[in-house]
Amino acid sequence: MAVYTEVLDEELFSFLAGYDIGDLLSYKGIAEGVENTNYYLHTTQGSYILTLYEKRVNEADLPFFLGLMQHLATKGLNCPLPLKSRSGETLGRLAGRPAAIFTFLDGIAVRRPTAQHCAALGSALAQLHLDGRDFAMSRPNALSVNGWPPLFAQAEAQADRVSTGLAERTRRELEALQRDWPTDLPNGIIHADLFTDNVFFIGREVSGLIDFYFACTDALAYDVAICLNAWCFEADGSFNLTKGRGLLSGYQAVRPLEASEIDALPVLCRGSAMRFMLTRLVDWLNVPPGALVKPKDPLEYDRKLHFHRQARNAREYGLVT
Amino acid sequence: MAVYTEVLDEELFSFLAGYDIGDLLSYKGIAEGVENTNYYLHTTQGSYILTLYEKRVNEADLPFFLGLMQHLATKGLNCPLPLKSRSGETLGRLAGRPAAIFTFLDGIAVRRPTAQHCAALGSALAQLHLDGRDFAMSRPNALSVNGWPPLFAQAEAQADRVSTGLAERTRRELEALQRDWPTDLPNGIIHADLFTDNVFFIGREVSGLIDFYFACTDALAYDVAICLNAWCFEADGSFNLTKGRGLLSGYQAVRPLEASEIDALPVLCRGSAMRFMLTRLVDWLNVPPGALVKPKDPLEYDRKLHFHRQARNAREYGLVT
Repeated sequence: MAVYTEVLDEELFSFLAGYDIGDLLSYKGIAEGVENTNYYLHTTQGSYILTLYEKRVNEADLPFFLGLMQHLATKGLNCPLPLKSRSGETLGRLAGRPAAIFTFLDGIAVRRPTAQHCAALGSALAQLHLDGRDFAMSRPNALSVNGWPPLFAQAEAQADRVSTGLAERTRRELEALQRDWPTDLPNGIIHADLFTDNVFFIGREVSGLIDFYFACTDALAYDVAICLNAWCFEADGSFNLTKGRGLLSGYQAVRPLEASEIDALPVLCRGSAMRFMLTRLVDWLNVPPGALVKPKDPLEYDRKLHFHRQARNAREYGLVT
Repeated sequence: MAVYTEVLDEELFSFLAGYDIGDLLSYKGIAEGVENTNYYLHTTQGSYILTLYEKRVNEADLPFFLGLMQHLATKGLNCPLPLKSRSGETLGRLAGRPAAIFTFLDGIAVRRPTAQHCAALGSALAQLHLDGRDFAMSRPNALSVNGWPPLFAQAEAQADRVSTGLAERTRRELEALQRDWPTDLPNGIIHADLFTDNVFFIGREVSGLIDFYFACTDALAYDVAICLNAWCFEADGSFNLTKGRGLLSGYQAVRPLEASEIDALPVLCRGSAMRFMLTRLVDWLNVPPGALVKPKDPLEYDRKLHFHRQARNAREYGLVT
């Protein structure tokens, strides 16, 4: 949680003058978001979010992310809609950063989802996959199977400082994943980071999906696997099969999984756990001095990998066939 | 700027259930406030601020602060109104902290006030002083002339690390202040921390005063001196007499200063500059490891003290007589 970029009033006023959103009544820096700086804006016309893109987001990817949100919002999916300025642009510049203004989404991110939350999330994920089908742009997933070895290379020498044997475990796991990774699954737009902080609920209903800054083109079922990892494990590391059932049946109610996707689910879970273990490990070993954000524990995903290595089929994740 | 205390959804829901403010639709940690943790709440009934009081605020003082805000809001002053829970209390407990819910105030804190802003601020300050007259509670000012020597004692030995000669300058200044400090000025409720971040504007009008957690009973003109220090110096350390005129004439239009207050203005300016120099100096020398908040520069107020030592009368602050 952090505000990385402070904005001067004058800069903000002149930036907002480029949009047809009324007069500014109030703005507050929001203490969340690891990658970007977000401000809550209240104007005479309503509430908005102003996002300033920090260095971790590649500026060249922003047209894809903003275009995708625009596409999905137009389809009726509840995601932030980037507003067009008077000159027709969704992307501007403020305080030396790329910046955009979005509609404000109500809703609350649940920290401890129930099986019902998981079911609602599963349906929303499937709807996202359907709504993304006719989006014209594409973006390769840099954090898929070919991206993992170079990530690991950054951390390998120091991995055992974090946990004894981690380097060797990871080497073997990466070999298995390279060998077994599926290449023929239905592809499309995936969110690729749909953790609980990126899903808003009002009551039991999903009211919004946010933070599309890892979205890319990849196997749709890989997104399902990311969510199984993020939503269905308990704090003690155990897998909650009831939550898995909720998530998978919620998904299937909107978009039934194909046989190839069902077969691939265990290896996709291993792969997505590897992806988060590796990025967390690299961050863990490279905390900059004075960092405002506490790095996340890579070992949480090392333990999930251990669980996934023993899973034989999608039933063990809660798939009801 | 910081969120010091993270609140769990379940705790928050059960806390909010004690208030008649509708159903929660959204909440966001706000990245501002040095002393406390603030959340923006959006409910089916409107917008609110939830404040959790951190350790720097003395819990025994909270009834005074909340009672004062209630008193002033009832008088029509735009300040946060603490809401009563269903059981009639303005102060509750959440996440192990004292906590309260307030009405949300629109408005924008100006970082570079103009003379017009200073005039509006002066009038709002005078109105606060008038509205506070019949508030029944009182609270001594621990950060007035008798509080400064013990503060300095915490920093004296290391003061010259911050600036050569600072210890000796401060010793002499404290002696002069002890000798010359006025004791017979009109007393009442003062805000005591009315920096630009604590005053909201919409256009040229003051739309709200916030952060009453240093409010106390002291000389009203001491509050004027605090504002002259906080609002009328430029970033380069120069005193802007036009802003001083704005502030003082705005104040006088609502509450004319008495002759004793006018006479005392230079020494009150010295004293209030000393107060902020000392608290900043102590904070500067005691930054905890991993601090989220950058300490403010004590030397800014050391330089202001130098200006004040040369001022002979209130005209040099912009008083038009």
